[in-house]
Order: sequence, then structure tokens, then C-alpha cells
Amino acid sequence: MACCRNCFCCQCCCREGETRTPEELTILGEIRDEDDDEILPRKDYESLDYDRCINEPYVEVLESLDNKKARKYEAVRWMMVFVIGVTVGLVGLFVDFFVHLFTKIKFSLVGDSIQKCTDKGCLSLSLLELLCFNMTFVFIASVLVLIEPVAAGSGIPEIKSYLNGVKIPGIVRLRTFLCKAAGVLFSVAGGLFVGKEGPMIHSGAIVGAGLPQFQSISFRRIKFDFPYFRSDRDKRDFVSAGAAAGVAAAFGAPIGGTLFSLEEGSSFWNQALTWKVLFCSMSATFTLNFFRSGINFNKWGSFQLPGLLNFGEFKCPDGDKTCHLWTVVDLAFFVLMGLVGGLLGALFNCMNKCLAKYRMRHVHPKARFFRVLESLLVSMVTTVVIFGASILLGECRDLSSTTHNATLADSEDINSTVRQFFCSNRTYNDMATLFFNPQEAAIHQLFHQDGTFSPVTLSLFFLLYFLLACWTYGVSVPSGLFVPSLLCGAAFGRLVANILKVKLGMAIYSGTFALIGAAAFLGGVVRMTISLTVILIESTNEITYGLPIMITLMVAKWTGDFFNKGIYDIHIQLKGVPLLEWETEVEMDKLTASDIMEPNLTYVYPHTRVQSLVSILRTTVYHAFPVVTENRQNERDFMKGNILISNNIRFKKSNVVSRAGEQRRRCQSMKSYPSSELRNVCDEQNAAVEPAEEGEDLLQQMLERRHAPYPNLYPDQSPSEEWTMEERFRPLTFHGLILRSQLVNLLIRGVCYSETQSNATQPRLSYAEMTEDYPRYPDIHEVDLTLLNPLMIVDVTPYMNTSPYTVSPNTRISQVFNLFRTMGLRHLPVVNAVGEIVGIITRHNLTHEFLVAKLRQHYITI
Amino acid sequence: MACCRNCFCCQCCCREGETRTPEELTILGEIRDEDDDEILPRKDYESLDYDRCINEPYVEVLESLDNKKARKYEAVRWMMVFVIGVTVGLVGLFVDFFVHLFTKIKFSLVGDSIQKCTDKGCLSLSLLELLCFNMTFVFIASVLVLIEPVAAGSGIPEIKSYLNGVKIPGIVRLRTFLCKAAGVLFSVAGGLFVGKEGPMIHSGAIVGAGLPQFQSISFRRIKFDFPYFRSDRDKRDFVSAGAAAGVAAAFGAPIGGTLFSLEEGSSFWNQALTWKVLFCSMSATFTLNFFRSGINFNKWGSFQLPGLLNFGEFKCPDGDKTCHLWTVVDLAFFVLMGLVGGLLGALFNCMNKCLAKYRMRHVHPKARFFRVLESLLVSMVTTVVIFGASILLGECRDLSSTTHNATLADSEDINSTVRQFFCSNRTYNDMATLFFNPQEAAIHQLFHQDGTFSPVTLSLFFLLYFLLACWTYGVSVPSGLFVPSLLCGAAFGRLVANILKVKLGMAIYSGTFALIGAAAFLGGVVRMTISLTVILIESTNEITYGLPIMITLMVAKWTGDFFNKGIYDIHIQLKGVPLLEWETEVEMDKLTASDIMEPNLTYVYPHTRVQSLVSILRTTVYHAFPVVTENRQNERDFMKGNILISNNIRFKKSNVVSRAGEQRRRCQSMKSYPSSELRNVCDEQNAAVEPAEEGEDLLQQMLERRHAPYPNLYPDQSPSEEWTMEERFRPLTFHGLILRSQLVNLLIRGVCYSETQSNATQPRLSYAEMTEDYPRYPDIHEVDLTLLNPLMIVDVTPYMNTSPYTVSPNTRISQVFNLFRTMGLRHLPVVNAVGEIVGIITRHNLTHEFLVAKLRQHYITI
Repeated sequence: MACCRNCFCCQCCCREGETRTPEELTILGEIRDEDDDEILPRKDYESLDYDRCINEPYVEVLESLDNKKARKYEAVRWMMVFVIGVTVGLVGLFVDFFVHLFTKIKFSLVGDSIQKCTDKGCLSLSLLELLCFNMTFVFIASVLVLIEPVAAGSGIPEIKSYLNGVKIPGIVRLRTFLCKAAGVLFSVAGGLFVGKEGPMIHSGAIVGAGLPQFQSISFRRIKFDFPYFRSDRDKRDFVSAGAAAGVAAAFGAPIGGTLFSLEEGSSFWNQALTWKVLFCSMSATFTLNFFRSGINFNKWGSFQLPGLLNFGEFKCPDGDKTCHLWTVVDLAFFVLMGLVGGLLGALFNCMNKCLAKYRMRHVHPKARFFRVLESLLVSMVTTVVIFGASILLGECRDLSSTTHNATLADSEDINSTVRQFFCSNRTYNDMATLFFNPQEAAIHQLFHQDGTFSPVTLSLFFLLYFLLACWTYGVSVPSGLFVPSLLCGAAFGRLVANILKVKLGMAIYSGTFALIGAAAFLGGVVRMTISLTVILIESTNEITYGLPIMITLMVAKWTGDFFNKGIYDIHIQLKGVPLLEWETEVEMDKLTASDIMEPNLTYVYPHTRVQSLVSILRTTVYHAFPVVTENRQNERDFMKGNILISNNIRFKKSNVVSRAGEQRRRCQSMKSYPSSELRNVCDEQNAAVEPAEEGEDLLQQMLERRHAPYPNLYPDQSPSEEWTMEERFRPLTFHGLILRSQLVNLLIRGVCYSETQSNATQPRLSYAEMTEDYPRYPDIHEVDLTLLNPLMIVDVTPYMNTSPYTVSPNTRISQVFNLFRTMGLRHLPVVNAVGEIVGIITRHNLTHEFLVAKLRQHYITI
Repeated sequence: MACCRNCFCCQCCCREGETRTPEELTILGEIRDEDDDEILPRKDYESLDYDRCINEPYVEVLESLDNKKARKYEAVRWMMVFVIGVTVGLVGLFVDFFVHLFTKIKFSLVGDSIQKCTDKGCLSLSLLELLCFNMTFVFIASVLVLIEPVAAGSGIPEIKSYLNGVKIPGIVRLRTFLCKAAGVLFSVAGGLFVGKEGPMIHSGAIVGAGLPQFQSISFRRIKFDFPYFRSDRDKRDFVSAGAAAGVAAAFGAPIGGTLFSLEEGSSFWNQALTWKVLFCSMSATFTLNFFRSGINFNKWGSFQLPGLLNFGEFKCPDGDKTCHLWTVVDLAFFVLMGLVGGLLGALFNCMNKCLAKYRMRHVHPKARFFRVLESLLVSMVTTVVIFGASILLGECRDLSSTTHNATLADSEDINSTVRQFFCSNRTYNDMATLFFNPQEAAIHQLFHQDGTFSPVTLSLFFLLYFLLACWTYGVSVPSGLFVPSLLCGAAFGRLVANILKVKLGMAIYSGTFALIGAAAFLGGVVRMTISLTVILIESTNEITYGLPIMITLMVAKWTGDFFNKGIYDIHIQLKGVPLLEWETEVEMDKLTASDIMEPNLTYVYPHTRVQSLVSILRTTVYHAFPVVTENRQNERDFMKGNILISNNIRFKKSNVVSRAGEQRRRCQSMKSYPSSELRNVCDEQNAAVEPAEEGEDLLQQMLERRHAPYPNLYPDQSPSEEWTMEERFRPLTFHGLILRSQLVNLLIRGVCYSETQSNATQPRLSYAEMTEDYPRYPDIHEVDLTLLNPLMIVDVTPYMNTSPYTVSPNTRISQVFNLFRTMGLRHLPVVNAVGEIVGIITRHNLTHEFLVAKLRQHYITI
């Protein structure tokens, strides 16, 4: 293990982006020096925005909304989640059916050939046949991934990132879906040590993202212009439902699926959403169940096969009263197994991380063709190992031990997958039984086969499987990790059971130990907690396994976390995704919002010239801009003929809700009430309105005077480098946020007014017009500048988000983090006690790496 | 049903409190007029504060915290939840053991007596014996509730309110726990139609609240001064763990328990907390399981009895291949049953609501003794009905039909609870079998007894049970509602099964229909969704029931919601608790924060005289006060010798973080870095510091000049009624919030300084001193005023929460609501664009009733 401690240092630097000040880069630079082999290619990711943007077009939509419409809208949502669930179930069915078909054809043909060749000595021919099958399948899978590279791997890291709020390009597109679903079919059928669960979850998520949109980017013809659900917020809800349905279909675990989407995705507990997600999961499970029962058993209408993967029934033989699935004594062993599982999982993750880094440096920069070659190499080695191990390393075990227990309902099933290769009658080849079967059947064997596997076979199987699975995860084919981990862990658990039962003569139930071994290893690799516990409980359909599974997973996670992160988090980190953890460490609370915010702001005024906007948009890469006004005591001195400046000041004056004004407004609205007493109170107080209105008149007079512009404040221009610090960081009152996409949209649609007219002449956009281009808004570089009049003025106030959540500069990090993550924010302005914006916080300012750097700086300055 | 529509109007007005402006009272008054029978006694409830108060003492604690300490703290938490889980399991065991014991004694004695008297005709003697038992038990239960009235009922409404953030006095005290746990034992043993599940959940919550405190208010001796977990935040976390453990112990449903505490309580999804809650639930289930397996079966170390209530194993007879637990055709019937269940549940709730209102008006105002009388009356009627129905209304059914199916493992159990009263050999009395058994046994009979119950018996049983259970829930004994609802619903389901199977000859599994009936009725009564689904799935230990149960519950909830709320919500409403729903209706988004906020503020200055504080505290009932400073353009003109005013202005000046100042700070901290380039940038920019410092000096000079006080602004006094509106609502810059309890604490501990000294001389309190009195802080009226010097000045700035979350006045309600509920806030200041506080939002401003009133006002003013 020690040799691996180095590569365990997980101080992967967060991506360098547009939002770094010099000192931050220095600090980040220091970290990078310590661990320079972390420098890997990185991408800039956009964030998703879960918070609603409340602007005038949206308020118009709101005003037209009543409860009846809202109820209809809700009904459409329910229908949608049902359709998503059914579709995901059908996708699962499709994948399962063809994997079954291909695997069956392959194994029966090769099996026959081996039976024949055992005597004739033409085993090399059989090997060639198997190689031929496997490499063809893997080649197809690999080519599909070439078409859409994002379809490689399990997809869980990508979905986790998406639900966390990071937009990964192409992750929820139809083409990805097609490549992933077809690809996983062939990579599983190709005999690689991969599962179909991860890709099922990814496919489910894409179904969730795509179906409610009624359009596709790949196939532009598929577009019905269905206006609902065109926002990141709705899309993310459907994606979490789809992902949950994927888990539900894969494991027959609807509750586990719901908890999966909560654990990996949701930042807050929304009862209505969770209820829909559960319904979606149920629909998926039962669609799959219905068709599989019908197709496989011809029992249409009954529901007998819960998920793609199920663990069979753990049950003591009926007559045996002394048999217990587990006793309190076994718990001690389970804890130890959890410990070992955690260690093995950490080793697996470490090796896989090193491999993945090697691939990123040496394989990915080369032609894509090399990735296909790697897949084929893996496929070839796997096939040879399977074949060689079955022939050379298997032991012939007595089959009779398996039949004494014929009362077990599924013992027939179990024995049907036993392989007798090279063994005499009534014995079977234990290695071949594990290797020459679909992985699910091998898991069933380890869980339920009463016949023993020899310890040597189990150890060898575990070792070979461990190494090959580790190599395979990351190869460019769609590949899940659940089933290989379960199988690997089950072999380990069965080995422990063998030793305890045969060598020490303890009365234990081997299947339980195999299950616990599987849970321990899987827990050590993926480090999921709540959802994994529930998924495993649901897969076994045995509530009494709750405690042992939970304890094992807890110990495995703690042990593993001592060394490195879970496999998905490692891959997320290698991709450079700025993922937000669950919560910050307690120590981070020594920092405040002002310590971590980005103080260099690029801002716009409520009324800005087109030329300034274009220049800002073209010279920066920010996704949102605070809308601000200058904050000067001597504002009136600047009042001059310039309509731009006076409009801005006028906006500021009118936008500040004062307590007295608010009270006056309330009194106004009380006029309609009969109570004369109340009216009197208000009438009396309305006298006080006068002075303010006078002030308004004064403003009006000043506006009409028309003087020179702001002295050296350049409100028409973007910030200049020549400014002094006081000018660069002069006080700015914060009024709202406007997104880059909104600004570009305004420019393209010519929303502006000329200097000689009032801003009321500016054209108004509806909500539909604002969101028409979702999710791909045009870029500023696509805008034809010749169509724009640079001197026109844009009034952004109707389109900005006037009420984003804000924090004060001395808010502690835990509070900032909580707000940001729970509300799914994208930009969090930091506003001081007098309403001036002093900085802005984005996802990148809250990543673990950034906070650690800032904390170090905090300690240095103390 | 129509007769009930009136009482279904759920416009229960929210409590009138201190925070009502005249127009609000008018509006609320109008509502009250419409539905005047809603006027019931109400209480003022305090809120809990889930948000941390970040002030100087807390920051001191933070600074002393490192990751090692944090890890230790975390370990204590894990230990705590384990101990809570085990304790809750033991409580369940205790209750279960004695209920079993008492019920067994009762039924065997009375049963024997009936057997004897059937021939002798002395049945009235048997009745007397039964009456004697039942009324004694119920009397004890009722007396226990007299001791602690809050122990009455199921406790779920109270726990739901607590987790929602409302403090209900006495709800988590040790005395309540003792009365509840002992009381439910006797009320169940007393033959009332009540369950022990609700009280178990309540008991679990109390264990969760109490154990980590290591002290008790009832028994002051029990106090170890353990300093951890003395905050609402931590207490609520432990209460949710305890409540989950209660569910887990009651139903053997650890996952369901976790989801229960999420659904009823949590406002946000916190992975770490959920994982602890699940562990706590698991500990409770398996503690109970371990001991029950040991005690009941003498199989120590095996785990065979998951929860207090379990539904037995639903299983087709082994040989029968045509038997399915349910098919797709049955789903249609399940939907219909859900519909009927929803209607029945709505009727039940309506009747129970009317009864509860009657009790509140006519029973509660009288002497407590009357409540005991009512309990005894209910007990007497129940006993007579049980006895009478069994004798007069039972049918003798053939027992032979139950034995043809002897392969069922638990058919022995089933037949052991069959009652043969007045029936010949090999037949049994079906009514007596249902009535003369513990309720759990009756449920088992309905779920698993293959022998038929006659439709007449089932109908009569349902009717009698429905009426009596409805009467019983609300009587002043500890009483749950789950088991009676399940039993009632199971009878309904079995009735449907009887009709379908016998009359229509369909091939269905009766047990499934009984289960679905139970789910439908329970769903119609309690209207829980996710958690109830999972609890029922876990109780049946059969994942394939997921879809039918979910669909049934959905339909039942929708149907019921058409008429009224769930029974728990009805009782919460009757108690006048300002509960916050999951989310606001979409229509509410037409309102903004400024529409609903409370604009009449009572505020304090950063530096305030003791006499002002005492007067504010004594004349208002607010629980928090904004700390503000005056916001005048001509601030400098007011600068005078008055140290109070200059201190306040000085605080304001120093407290506003400016962008330039922030940049300067960052440059300062960069000095320690080697990069010379960076240093130069900062050095250059530091030149700009001068003018500001000059300003500081100017301030200093002015402070030294010492002029007259603020003209007519009375900073030393509390707001006066004679002020004009402009004075009342003059602009105030918001700096922080301080709680009433903190102010009282400062006064008691003499934290203040004299006018002639600097505020640095004020004594400082530590975090431990600030929280010492948790959870019962002293009242201002307990403070001895003679010990206070009224002219001393209190500097509240070190103790106020400097960074509460705030919203802008034009934030939409859904955003305000989300922030408030998700973050578990107590006070939410509304702050305008220039940092002036314009109002404050508390829980009362967000209740459904208040929002409806405001929306109506909104429509009127449009």
C-alpha cells in the first residue's frame, strides 16, 4: 500500500479560469508545484442555474398563471415522469434482451466446440472462435464510443456532475444515448469485465433530460416546439428522475434509485419532486418486470423478475431449524470483511487512477484509433485469461453436494449454469463455472451454489478479475463497475466463508458471506452510503440484511476514505470538474465570504450603450454581470444633459424601497377598506409624501438642464486599465444580475432605444422569446455587429434578475456554501451593509481546493 | 358527504400575535367572519432557530477548532445516535413486552370464563371481568395523561411541528416520555382501539432530544453539564434521528423511518445527517429484533422478528403455480380501492375534526377530571361492543378450509389466534376472532387466514371499528392511529376480496387485497406519501408490492386531499401551530417579500443604554431585534460630544466593507508573498489609501468636538407614538440581528460600559456563558432591575448575528419561502438596495393563511 500513498494525494488543483486574481494564481501555483504530476488537460465547464431568474418577462408569465393552470402544468409533469419511467424500463429491456441473446449464442456455440474439442485436442480452435466473437463485439462498442466520446465509461461521474450543477457538453444528448445504450450491449456481450448498470443510469438520465424537451439537437427535425420545461431547473428535476429510474431498472430497486438521485444529486429535499422520482422509478421497475416476466417466462401480467440484476432468494432450507442467515457473532466477521473490502477498494481506486492518468497523458493525445486498439487488446487478454484459467486452473468439484437441497425453488436455475468442462460426470469445473457464464449467473453461483468452490480457485478468480476489471474501467467502451465489483467481492466473501465453514467448522450461511463480501468490495470502490445500502437490501429482497450490509458499507467507506476518494469522485477530479461536496469542513468556517469572493468585477449599468455591452461581452468570459449604479454623495453635481447618466440615476432613485415609502404604499392600498379609522391614519400620514415628490421634481429639473458627463468616470466605456485603484473599486450599488446569454439575446433582437427617445420606446421581449434558444444560446461572436447601432442604449432592467440571493461580506463559509449548494445557485453577489457590491462568488470559489488554498493564505496572514 | 363540505373549509386563521398591523387584522378578521366556528383557543408558539448565530463568542469557538477536534466531535455524534437507537429499541421492547403480558393475561382469563359460561349462561360475569380489566388499564393511562397533558394522542402532530421548527412547550421533556411510554402500554392493554406506533415515534423523539443533553428539567439532579449539542440545531437533528428510530422500532422499517423523518421534518437533504439517521434506525430495529428473538423464541443471536408490527409473509402456496400475489388486472381494483379508501379517510378525518372541536370547546375548559371520565366512557362502550358483537353478530365458519394449506410456515401462528367462542368443533367465530385478539393478531388474520370471513361480519366489523376508532383518537390517553387504520382498512380490503373471489369467482390472492385495503384507508387518513409507501413495503418484506401500494396511496391521497387535510395536519391546525408547508402555491408568487413582511420594526442601536433595552424588552414580545444605525446624509452635522451617538456612527463607518478597502486588505496580505511584481502593484495602489485615512481622522476630530445630541431623533429612547411617519420610518442601515434571550443574558451578566469609558472596557462573555441556560433562558421580568444602572451603555455588536441571510424587497414569495424553510430560519430581514432594513419576515408571515389573505389584498389593490 505504501507505494501508493503518493498518488493518493488528492490535491488536484481546480481549473484555472477567468476568475483568478494574481495572488490566487500564486497560491494555486504553490500547490501545483508540490504535486506536479496532477497537471492534466482540463476543460472549462459552465454551471447550471437552479435558481429562477425573476425578471419582467417571467413576472408576466407568473401574473397570467392561476391555480388551474398550475394544476394542469403539474399533471403534465406527472405524465412526463411516468413516460420517462416506462421508456427507461423499455431501454433496460432492450439492452437486457440483446445481451442475453448474444451471450447465449456465444456461450452455447463455444461451449459445444469445447465439448467436442476436449477429446479431439482442437482447443485452440475454440479459443479462436471465442476471440472472434468477443473482439467483434468490443470493436463495435468501441467504434460507437468513437462517434460520441462522452459515451465511454459508466456515465455516473458525468451524471453526478450534472446533478451537482456542472454542465458537461454533450452529456444529455440523443446521440450519446444511442451510442451508450448500443455500446454497453456490445461491451457486455463481448465478455469484458464490465456491468451494464452505470450506462443504464446514464441512459435513464438522458431519457429524462430529452423526453420533456420534445426536440433534439442531433436530429433537428425532431422538434415539436413544446414550450414547457425549457430551463435548467426543470431539466435537472427530470434528469434526476431519469437517473433514479435507471437505477430502479438496473437493480429492481425503486427506493434505492430515488435515494441514489437524492444522494448524488439533490441539494435539497423537495417532497413533491421526491414523490415524482419515486413514481418514475416504480414505473421503470414494473415496466421492465412486466415485459421480462412475459418474455422470459411467458407469464404476462405477473411480476416476477424485479430488475436486470437481482440476487436471488436467500433462504434457509425449509427443514433446517438451526440454520440462520446470520447471527450476532457473524457481525464481527462482517466488520473485518468491511475493513478488508475498504483496503481492496482503495487499492483498486489507486491503480485505476494511475491508469487513467497514464491514458490521459499517453493515449488520449494520440489518434482516436489507438483507443480502439486498447479496447481490442483488453478484450483479447480477457478472452485468453478466461479461456486459459478455465482449462488450466479449474478444479473438478463434486456436483452431488448441490442436489441434496432440492427444495430450493431456484436450485434448478443454479445448476443450469454449472459448467462441466473437462470434468467427469457428476463433477463440475469450478473456475469455468465462474468464468464461462454471464456475470450475473456467476454472482448467483457464488451466492446460492451450495457446492463448494476450492479456495485456490476463488483466490485466483479474485486476483484475475480484480486486475482485469481495474484495467477495463476507463477503456473507451461504455462500461459499468457495479457488477464486476460485486462479483469480485462475492468471490472474496465466498473465500472467507469457505475458510470459516470448512477449515474452522463454523455453522454459517455461505451465501450471506458472499453477499457481505460483495457489499464490502463495492462499498470500498464506490463509497456510496445510503443509496447503496438500500439498493443492496432491495436487490436481496430481504430486510433482515439491513444491519450487516449497513455496517459493512460503513466500515468499508471509512477504511477506504482513509486512503483516497471513491472511484467516481476520482474520475470527476481527473476531469477537472468543479464539484461541490456535501458540506465544507468545519475548519473552513474560519474564512468569510469576503475572503473567498472574486473582487474584480465586470459590471453593466442599468442603461448602457450597445458598444459598451459588445466590448464587455467580447473581452470577458463571465457568464453573468452585476447591474450596478454609481454611489456618490454628490450625485446631483453629475446631473447633466446626458440621458444615459440621468436614466441610471433615476433608476437608482426609483428602485430603492424605503421604509416610509413602503408604509405609504400600504396606506394607499388601505384606502379601499371601509374602516374609517384606518383611512384617517393613512390620510394623515400621506401629508408626509410631499417632500419626496419635491425631490423628484428637483431631479426632473436637473435632468432638463443637461450638463457635461461624469468627470473621469467613463460610464459609457468598459473599465480601463489606466484607472487608479479608487476608480477601479469605487462604490457601486447593486441592483441585479444579468446573464451573458440574456445580454446577447437582447442585442440580437435589437432591444434598445436611441438617445433622443425615452426608454419606454425600447421593444419588449416575452418569456418565450427570452428562452427560445434554450439550451444553446448564441455566442457574442456569432452576432453580426454591422446590424447594431453602437450608440443606441440598452435598458437591461426589465430583463435582469432583480432579487438574487446575496450574502454579506462577513458571512461564514459554511453559510455561504449551504446557501449556494442548497439553492443551486450559479452566481452569489456579496453585498455590504449599505448595499454596495463588493464581490461575487461562483462555484469555483467554493471548491475544496480553492478553499484549502484560501485557508492557507488565512493562516499565513495571521 | 355533502353535509361535511362545510366543516372541510380549512381556512383556519393563523394566530393573532404581536406582529399584526391594523390592515392585516382587518383582513384576517374578514376571513374569520366567514367561518366563525374556527375560533378555538390558540397558543403563541415560539420558533426554533436552525441557523447558526455567528457572533464573536461563536467565532472564538470556531477559531479554537481544528479538524482533529471536529473529528472527535463527529465521533461523539455517531456514538450518540447509536445510543439513541439502542435506547429507542429498548423502549419498544419494554412497551411490547408488557402489552403482550397484560393482553395475554386478560384474554386468557376472560376467554376461559367465556368458555365456561357459554354453557352456564353467566356471560354477564365474563363481560364484567373484561370491563374491569379494560377500565382499570384505561384509568391508569388517563391519569398518566393528567400528569402531563401533552402526552395525549399520538404525538406525531407535535413531533411534526417540532421538526418543522415550532417549539411546543413540554413536548420533548423526560416527564412527557415517562407518561407517554407507560400510558400507551395501558391504553393498548386496555383494549382501546389505539395503536402504539405514534407514541413510539414520540418517545423516540424525546429520547433523541434528551439523551445528548445529559440533563433533565423535571429531575434537576440529572445534570452532568455535558457541553455539547446545546443548540436548537443539534437538538433538532437528534430529534429527527430519534423519531426515525421510533418508526423503525414500531414497524421494523429502518429505511421507512429515515424517510419519515425526512418527509415530516427535514427541510434540506443533508447526507451526513441522513446517514446517521439511518444508522440510528437500524440500531433501533436490530436491538428490538435481537431481544424479541431472544425472549419470545429463545433464539438469542438470531434476528427473526423485525418490528413491533409486522405483516407476516405473503407467499403463494409452494405447489400452486397459477397463484400470483397480484397481476396487472388487479391494479384496476387497487385504484378503485384507493379511491374508496381516500373517501373513507376523508370522512374519518372530518368526523374526527368535528369531535376534536367539540372537545376543545366543551370538554377541555372543564376540570381535567372530565377527560378521565370520557376515557372511561370510551373504554366501557368499546368493551361492550367487543363483547356484544362477538356473541351476537359472529358467524361460525368452517375451520377445515384453513388447514388444507399446512405448508405455510406460519399457518400454526394464524390458527393459534382463531377464536371458537360459541361455535362447534372445527368451526370458529369469525367476529370473535377479529375482536378478541390483539389488533396485530387480527391484522394477521385478515392478511393470511385462508378461511373466509363472512361479508356481513366484515362489514359490521368495519363499521363498528371505524366509528369507535374515530371517537377514540383524541381522547386523553396516549393513542396511535396506524394500527386501527390498518385493521379497519384490512377489513374493507378483505371484504372486496371476498366479493371478487367468492361472488365473481376471480382467481385472486385475498391477502394482497386486505393489504391494499389497509394501505388505502391508512393513506386516506394520514396522507403520508413516500415514507408510508416504504414503511408498508418494508413491513411486508416484499419488494414486489411496491407498485400497487404506491398507486393505492397516491389515489387515496389525491381523493382525500380533494375534501380535507390529513388527520395530523388537521390536529396541527386545531392547535393553531404556524406550520410551514412544503412549498407555496404557484399563485403566491404574485406577491413579493415587501408584500408580506412586517414593516413595524422595534430595533436597537449597536450601542444602547440599559434603560432603553429594558424598556424595549419589557414593552414588546419580539424574539429578535435588528441592530441598526441611522442613515442620514448629514451625519457629520450630528457628530457631537454624545459618546453614544458617536460610537454608533463610528461602528457604522468601520462596519461597511468597501470594494477599495477590501482590495487594499488583499494587497496587504500579499506583502508576505515573494513575487516582487505583485508587491509593486499593491504598493502603488496603497498610495490611494491616504484620502480615506484622512477621512478617518476627520471623524476622529469631529468625535472630539462633542456637540449636542441628534435633533429630535431620541436615539436613547424607544420609539414614541408621537413621531410623524417620516420619523417612525426613517431609513435605517441594517447591521445584524440580536435575540431577546441574548439581550436578557447581557443584562443579567452586567455586560455594559459607562459613558465615561471606552466600549473596550465592557466585559466579554464566552460561548459557554452565552448558551449556559439553554433551552430555558431567563425572562426579562425575572431580572432584578435594581441591580442595573440604567445609564450604562451596552455594546451589542460582539453578540449580534452579523450575517443573517437577508432578502431584497422584490424577492418573490417562492424564493423567500424556500430560503426560510430550507435554512430553518426564524427571522428574515428584508433589506433594500442600499442596505436599509425595510421589514422582517417570520414564520407567521409565511403561513398559508397569511399568504392567502395577502394575495386577496393584492387582488383588491390591483
